[in-house]
Amino acid sequence: MADATTAPRTSRVRSWWGWGWADAHPDDAECAAMGALLPGALARPLPIPRVADLDIGRPAVEPPHTLAHLVTADPDVRAAHAMGKAYRDVIRALRGTPGRIPDLVAYPVGDQDVTELLEWACDHRVAVIPYGGGSSVTGGVEYRGDAHRAVLSLDLTAMDRVLEIDADSRSARIQAGVLGPALEDQLRPHGLTLRHFPQSFEFSTLGGWLATRAGGHYATVHTHIDDFAQSLRVVAPAGVSDSWRLPASGAGPSPDRFFLGSEGALGVITEAWMRLQERPHHKASASLSFTDFHAALPAVRAIAQSDLAPANCRLLDGGEAALSGAAQDGSAILVLGFESATAPVKARLAQAVDLARAHGGRAAEPSGAGNAAGAAVGAWRSAFLRMPYLRDGLARMGAVAETFETATTWERLPALVDAVRTEVGAAAHKATGHPATVNCRLTHVYPDGAAPYFTVLAAGRPGDEVSLWDDLKAVASDVLHRHRATVTHHHAVGRDHRPGYDRQRPEPFALALRAAKGALDPHGILNPGVLLD
Amino acid sequence: MADATTAPRTSRVRSWWGWGWADAHPDDAECAAMGALLPGALARPLPIPRVADLDIGRPAVEPPHTLAHLVTADPDVRAAHAMGKAYRDVIRALRGTPGRIPDLVAYPVGDQDVTELLEWACDHRVAVIPYGGGSSVTGGVEYRGDAHRAVLSLDLTAMDRVLEIDADSRSARIQAGVLGPALEDQLRPHGLTLRHFPQSFEFSTLGGWLATRAGGHYATVHTHIDDFAQSLRVVAPAGVSDSWRLPASGAGPSPDRFFLGSEGALGVITEAWMRLQERPHHKASASLSFTDFHAALPAVRAIAQSDLAPANCRLLDGGEAALSGAAQDGSAILVLGFESATAPVKARLAQAVDLARAHGGRAAEPSGAGNAAGAAVGAWRSAFLRMPYLRDGLARMGAVAETFETATTWERLPALVDAVRTEVGAAAHKATGHPATVNCRLTHVYPDGAAPYFTVLAAGRPGDEVSLWDDLKAVASDVLHRHRATVTHHHAVGRDHRPGYDRQRPEPFALALRAAKGALDPHGILNPGVLLD
Repeated sequence: MADATTAPRTSRVRSWWGWGWADAHPDDAECAAMGALLPGALARPLPIPRVADLDIGRPAVEPPHTLAHLVTADPDVRAAHAMGKAYRDVIRALRGTPGRIPDLVAYPVGDQDVTELLEWACDHRVAVIPYGGGSSVTGGVEYRGDAHRAVLSLDLTAMDRVLEIDADSRSARIQAGVLGPALEDQLRPHGLTLRHFPQSFEFSTLGGWLATRAGGHYATVHTHIDDFAQSLRVVAPAGVSDSWRLPASGAGPSPDRFFLGSEGALGVITEAWMRLQERPHHKASASLSFTDFHAALPAVRAIAQSDLAPANCRLLDGGEAALSGAAQDGSAILVLGFESATAPVKARLAQAVDLARAHGGRAAEPSGAGNAAGAAVGAWRSAFLRMPYLRDGLARMGAVAETFETATTWERLPALVDAVRTEVGAAAHKATGHPATVNCRLTHVYPDGAAPYFTVLAAGRPGDEVSLWDDLKAVASDVLHRHRATVTHHHAVGRDHRPGYDRQRPEPFALALRAAKGALDPHGILNPGVLLD
Repeated sequence: MADATTAPRTSRVRSWWGWGWADAHPDDAECAAMGALLPGALARPLPIPRVADLDIGRPAVEPPHTLAHLVTADPDVRAAHAMGKAYRDVIRALRGTPGRIPDLVAYPVGDQDVTELLEWACDHRVAVIPYGGGSSVTGGVEYRGDAHRAVLSLDLTAMDRVLEIDADSRSARIQAGVLGPALEDQLRPHGLTLRHFPQSFEFSTLGGWLATRAGGHYATVHTHIDDFAQSLRVVAPAGVSDSWRLPASGAGPSPDRFFLGSEGALGVITEAWMRLQERPHHKASASLSFTDFHAALPAVRAIAQSDLAPANCRLLDGGEAALSGAAQDGSAILVLGFESATAPVKARLAQAVDLARAHGGRAAEPSGAGNAAGAAVGAWRSAFLRMPYLRDGLARMGAVAETFETATTWERLPALVDAVRTEVGAAAHKATGHPATVNCRLTHVYPDGAAPYFTVLAAGRPGDEVSLWDDLKAVASDVLHRHRATVTHHHAVGRDHRPGYDRQRPEPFALALRAAKGALDPHGILNPGVLLD
C-alpha cells in the first residue's frame, strides 16, 4: 500500500453554459467565420449568456444546520449545475431558457456526508441529482418535472483522491469525484494508469464514468469502464453497498454490474477499487485508405475478429476524413494503433495492415509505422478534443452541430448507417430548407459488431433550435429502433434517450429495475426521471 | 443466415446417482484398489444404489391435461433429477438418502411450453427447478423445504438446437438445453466454436452455463461465459424478457448481466444469441517448474499482468503435479498454452516463457513448444476429465474427495492458500483421525488476482459423511470470508454456498434482488432457496 499524492488544482474557469474552459471558446470573430461557411447561419453570433440575466430565484429549502458548510446557494454555482453539456443544453443557455436551476449545490467530502444529505433529502422531499464533471450529453444531470419540493445538485468533485494503491494487484481505491487529469496525475508516480480516456476526459469524473458505463478511447476488448471496476461503494437511502474486491466471481448476478449504468437512480457511487495498467511504452500506428466507408467494413471486421486487439481501430468516412484533414477525395480512412507495456507491437501492426490490405485497403505509407501516420493521429486527436468547443461556436451562429452514437452487429451495420444518413439528412433538409451533413465514424469495434458515431451539421431554425433538434433526434431514434441498434453505446440514457431506452429495454427487466429502485430509494429522490419514472 | 444441423444423439446411459456415464464408473475392484491407498477407507465399496430401493412415492400433483405429453412421473427419471453431482449428492445417493425427489419432470420443447408450465405451477403452488445437464456441485437443482405443494424439475434438454447462425457477426441463436458436445457438433460445420469448455462440458448445457456464470477452460481475458452472451431470452412468470443482440451497449444496467448468474431464481433462460469464435489452429504450449507453489506466483502474476493472454496458464502445486504425473519431487508446475485462429503463437509463448524464467522458472524443455509439453497437457487433461469418476469411486470407499474454488487479489492470495491448506487440513485430520491432503492449482488468472482451486482428499466418517463434508465446507467458507475471497469463482451459489454468499453480498444489493424476484416471480415458484429465501 502506498500513500497517494494530492491532486493539483487549476485556476482556469469552467464555462457555466458551454463545454469546458471558459477561455477556450471561439471568440465572436471565429464564430462568425464558421457561420459564413454554413447556409442559413445567423449574421452574428448569439451573445454569451450571463447568469445575472437569469431569473434564478431563492432556494425553496434551507440546508440543514449540520450540513450547511457543505452547501451553497450561490447563483453562479447553481446555474452551472442546472444542465449537462449537450447541444440541447447549450442552446437553451444561449436562448436564456436553461433547465430548472437547482435550489442548492452540495459538496460532500465523505460518504457520511452523502448519507446525511440523502437522509435530509428523503425527509424533505428534495430531489438529489448526483453530479460529477457535468459533461452529460443526454440530460443526465438536470431536474425535469415538479414532483419534488426542491432540487439538490450533489457535486462529488471534492471527493477527488486516490486513497490507496495495491501495487501487487495493480489496483487502486479511488474517490468517485476525481476528474480524469487529476486521477492520472495521482497514478503517474506509481507508473500506473487507468487508461480510460473518453473525449470528456478533462471534464468528467470516475463516478460519472461508472454511473454511465462510459466508453474510453481504446477500440477493442475492454472498451467500457465496466471491465475496470474491481469493486464499488454505493451510498443509497437504503444503506451503503460495498462489494468485495475480486478479480472475478461467479456468485450470483454481479452487484457491480447492477450499479454500473444506474446513472444515479439507484445510489450514489462514492468510491471504487479500479483495475489499473502499466503505462504502455511500445506504440505503433498506421492509416489506410479505402474507396469509401462501406468498402472498408470487411477490413475492419477482419481485424475486429482477429485476436490482434488494436488499441485504435477508427474508421472515418469521407466526410469525417475531410474534416480532420486525413483525406479530401471522399476516401474513408482507417486509423490503426497498437500499444503495449509488455512487448514491441510492430509485428501486430503489420499483421493488421496485411489484413486490411487483403480486404482492399491502401496503406498510406509502406512501413506502416511512420511519422505520417503518427501526425495524422495527432491532428485527428486535437481536432477531436477541440470539437465540442466548435459545436458551441456553431450553436452561437444558430447552426445545429451535434453527435449521437450507437452499436449494432456487423450484419446490420451497413443498412443502419445508410438509413441514418438518409433519414436524418432528409429530415434536417426538410426542417431547415438547407442540405445537412451527416458524417459517420466507427469508434469501437467488436468481433460481433461495431459502434458508429454520427455527427450532424445542419442549418438551424432560429429561435426554435431545441424542438428542431428534438425532431431530428426522434428521427434518429426511430431509425436505431427499427434496426435494433442500441440507443447509446457510451453516452448513457439520461432523460433525452428515455423514449428509445424504454422501447429497447425488455419489459420484465424494467419491472425488476423498478422494484429494485423502490427498495433502494423508497422516497424516489435519486435522479428522478433517469432510467425510470 | 444458415440452417443449423440436427444434433446427434447418444445411446449411452447417464448415471442417476453419480457423475457422467453409468458405464464409465470405476468398478468394485478399482474402487477397492484406490481405497487401499487411503487410511481409514472402507474394506469394500458401498454398493451402487438402485432407484428401486428408494421410497419415491406418487406425485403430489397431476400435470395439466394440455401439457401432459411433456411431463413424466417415471421413478427413474424423477430420481435422476433429484440432485446435482456434488460429493454431497453422491454420498446421499449411496447412503439411500437423496434429496427430495421431484414429483414430476417436464421436457418443454419451446418457450410457450415453459410459459404454460410456469403458469400452471403458479396456480398450483408447485416449485419449479430449472434443470440443464444436472451437473451442479452446489445444490443448485434440488428442492429443500416444504413451502410448496409439489416440485417440478424443468428439464430443458429437449431444446437442444442451434436455430440460426449469423456468420458476418460470428454469432448464433442457440436453445438453452443443448449439451456441450451437441452444441459444438452443430457449430463445427460452420468453422465456428463457442470455445467454452468447462470440466463438465459433456454433462452441462448452455442454459446452465449462463444461469451459473460458468467458467471455461481458458485462463485469461474472457474466462466466464458472461462475455460471450450477446443477448438472452428469459421466460419468467411476469413475462418473457428478450434483450437486443448488441456487440456492446451503455444503455442502463445490463439486462443480460442481471440474468447471468440468476440460477433459475428470476426466470428460465430458454435461448441466447452467443458470440462465437473461429476454431484456433495455431497452438503452442510449454511447462515450467518452480521450487514450490509460492515461488511460482511472481511468474504467474507477471504473465497475467502482461498482454500476452495465454489460453492456458495453469499452476499446479506439488501435490497436483504429483497426481497428474507432471512432477514427483514437490515442484510446482506451470503449464502455458497459446492458441490463435489469426497468427502463429510461438513468439507469444516464448515471451511468456522468458517472463517465467526471469521470475525463477525452469523450462521443462528448451524449445518451449515441444512434444513433451503437449503430452503433459494431454495427460493432465484426460486425468482432469476422469477426476469426477474417481471422486465417486472414492466416495464408495467412504473417503472424502471433493473440490472447491475461489478467487482473490494477488496481494491476498498467498495467505489465503496457506490458510485453506492449514485450516481445512487440520479440521479433516481432527474429524477423521487421519491426515488429509489439500492440493491447490490456479485455474484462471487476471491482472488483479487469480482463482485457486482446491482438492480435498480425506478419510471419511462412515455413515456420517454428509455432516463431515458440511463441517469441512464451513471451515473453508470461513477462511474464504476472512480473506475476502469469493464464495465461488465459477461453481455458482446454489444452496450449499448460501451462508457464504449471504455474508459476501452487499445488503443493499440483496434488497434489490429480493425486490426484483418479487416482481418477476411473485408466487415464489422459481428455484426457491437459490440465491434468496
